[in-house]
Amino acid sequence: MRAEIITIGDELLIGQVVDTNSAWIAERLNEIGIELYQITSVHDQREHIIAALDEAFSRAGIVLTTGGLGPTNDDITKRVLCEYFDTPLIEDKRVRTHISDLYRDRPDVLNKLTATQWLVPESAEILENRVGSAPLMIFHHGKQILASMPGVPYEMKIAMEEQILPYLSRQLSEISNQIMHRTLQVTGIAESSLAILLEKYEDAMPSMLHLAYLPKDGIIRLRLSVYGDMTAEQMNRWFEDLKTLVADYLIADTDEPLEVIVGKLLAERGQTISTAESCTGGKLAALLSKHPGSSAFYFGSVISYDNSVKEHLLDVPSEMIKAHGVVSEEVVRVMAESVRKHLNTDFSIATSGIAGPSGGSKEKPVGTVWMAWATPEGTFAECFHLGKLREQVTDRACTKALVGMLKILTNK
Amino acid sequence: MRAEIITIGDELLIGQVVDTNSAWIAERLNEIGIELYQITSVHDQREHIIAALDEAFSRAGIVLTTGGLGPTNDDITKRVLCEYFDTPLIEDKRVRTHISDLYRDRPDVLNKLTATQWLVPESAEILENRVGSAPLMIFHHGKQILASMPGVPYEMKIAMEEQILPYLSRQLSEISNQIMHRTLQVTGIAESSLAILLEKYEDAMPSMLHLAYLPKDGIIRLRLSVYGDMTAEQMNRWFEDLKTLVADYLIADTDEPLEVIVGKLLAERGQTISTAESCTGGKLAALLSKHPGSSAFYFGSVISYDNSVKEHLLDVPSEMIKAHGVVSEEVVRVMAESVRKHLNTDFSIATSGIAGPSGGSKEKPVGTVWMAWATPEGTFAECFHLGKLREQVTDRACTKALVGMLKILTNK
Repeated sequence: MRAEIITIGDELLIGQVVDTNSAWIAERLNEIGIELYQITSVHDQREHIIAALDEAFSRAGIVLTTGGLGPTNDDITKRVLCEYFDTPLIEDKRVRTHISDLYRDRPDVLNKLTATQWLVPESAEILENRVGSAPLMIFHHGKQILASMPGVPYEMKIAMEEQILPYLSRQLSEISNQIMHRTLQVTGIAESSLAILLEKYEDAMPSMLHLAYLPKDGIIRLRLSVYGDMTAEQMNRWFEDLKTLVADYLIADTDEPLEVIVGKLLAERGQTISTAESCTGGKLAALLSKHPGSSAFYFGSVISYDNSVKEHLLDVPSEMIKAHGVVSEEVVRVMAESVRKHLNTDFSIATSGIAGPSGGSKEKPVGTVWMAWATPEGTFAECFHLGKLREQVTDRACTKALVGMLKILTNK
Repeated sequence: MRAEIITIGDELLIGQVVDTNSAWIAERLNEIGIELYQITSVHDQREHIIAALDEAFSRAGIVLTTGGLGPTNDDITKRVLCEYFDTPLIEDKRVRTHISDLYRDRPDVLNKLTATQWLVPESAEILENRVGSAPLMIFHHGKQILASMPGVPYEMKIAMEEQILPYLSRQLSEISNQIMHRTLQVTGIAESSLAILLEKYEDAMPSMLHLAYLPKDGIIRLRLSVYGDMTAEQMNRWFEDLKTLVADYLIADTDEPLEVIVGKLLAERGQTISTAESCTGGKLAALLSKHPGSSAFYFGSVISYDNSVKEHLLDVPSEMIKAHGVVSEEVVRVMAESVRKHLNTDFSIATSGIAGPSGGSKEKPVGTVWMAWATPEGTFAECFHLGKLREQVTDRACTKALVGMLKILTNK
């Protein structure tokens, strides 16, 4: 069973908004055995939306649209869908009640524009949007299905999880195409060298298996996919063989973000971590506290963006900064050890580097990052050169910090 | 002049990677007067890529593709483009020299797969990819142009800025369609109420003007766009009228992120800021240190995820936590004042809340966030209810923190 996504909104096409919805939807569809064939982003324009609907229905049995359902004039998706499916708008009492309840405490919002939200296409099935005023609509197009959802990510996610996915699962009496993905993560080898290492393995793969290389921030994710007839057990054997082949570079045998893997290891052992960040400026802290349950292992951070903070809160002697510079082994070691001591954690990570665009020198060009890991067994430090672009440097530094921590936790 | 983007890669369609490239490219194209009509994401499959190329060329004069240019077998874009434009692969000496230089220090990377990277389509113009091994290719299709770039964001951005955009600018002898966007940001009013406030204004707009409402995290961005014949001065008058109409809710008259606006105001005045974060866990610090030049005003943060850190580094008495809970006005006030004092900054912001999914209670449900701003004139605190989803709560809390700071700095 194939699906397509049409994302509707001028904001996507002038670069004002990044489409994070489609990737999230794709993952959820895969989980219930639906393959996403294409994503198409179109303007809030009648002709453009209609052309995209025609094309999508020529290729896929399920079409999901996001966006264009607000109460303002620039949002036209509902009207265009009425035209496309040749059905009038009628008032829906349940939706009206729901919206009146939703804005009970904000009577100013119950205005004439909001009132247009309880007009729904007569031929559509209306599902409840628990958190917003835009109705979720399902249209039938022969044996094909269209589901229309809001574009606001939080609303879309709740709509998918509570309504659209259960609806699609019910419709799919049997899953025509089996989809499985397994991913592992390696580091310390170039993409092309990895491909040569796996040459014989790839040659021997049956046609329903597919191997993809996804390099990012110094890590390569290797994704093994099945499209078609293969048991989970068979796939598992292929995956285990792959793991054996890349064992020297393997850092994870799941697609989970590194901070989740590190967090799980720490939580299992009842151990804790803190950070002292200069160049990464809180990015590492934000990663470590991002996921539910992180308070079990993550205690906090001292973000010492200014040197005075390194001196006052992290006990870095000003003479040390004068002698070696803030981006130095000496300074990151003290930062890591101080934050570990003051926050009373088992481990800590410290970063100090030159993220750019300014601040580089001949000896220490932009991209130079010193990093230290303080552990019960001692403190380790390493210097990296992580590129020339500010965002690249700080992203890669977070990855290096987590890879280092993972190696310490797994004794690699 | 119209362009389309085709992003190529299975990883986009199984949700493993979010397409951040397209939004960035769209903005750059708009800046040089090129309108992006559609974004299409397709699989690494010959037939799919060819169909997407046919469709894109039926609508647009410029087609940009990203992805599928790696040295491994799953990447097929170059081969498919050779077939599409009916041209063979030939060795390019300049590309060979460039790649040999690029990997001078890593001879293991100069293997037989990397060697395929210096094979290029004979009929294509080859532009230099300074930071990677995949050649940038320009194909001519009658009067139409196709540019093929790598999908790795850092490589793509450098390719666009150094090669593709200057190339396209040179090709466009005159700009056929004038595109201008101006955006302002408002808060404290519902989207539908705002639309009613602007009803007469929208009715009076000429057809080349377009107004869009983009709500996110409690802020609505209002974007005024011109597609067609209007002078910058005329547009400016429309924009100023819009500003006057929404004056009561206005927080910014540019599309810049709030942390940039706050940072500029602070830097202009030579003032500084620090943060003490609990529920936002470093996200606010990461925002404030994200942009070049932030070290001029941002000193650092104490991320007190664990209560012990609130007590030891931020002087919050344990009796206060016992009496009022960590999510309380009393605690955030002390957090803000302590971090302002210890980091010796003019301002500070403190956050403490329940991001969820667990930790909520009847009195303090998930989404409850207390926030304090310490200033030379005193400390202000406020309580917010920011939703039910972890990411939503922490994103909105950062927005509220910055809006509060902006109001303090502009005396609103």
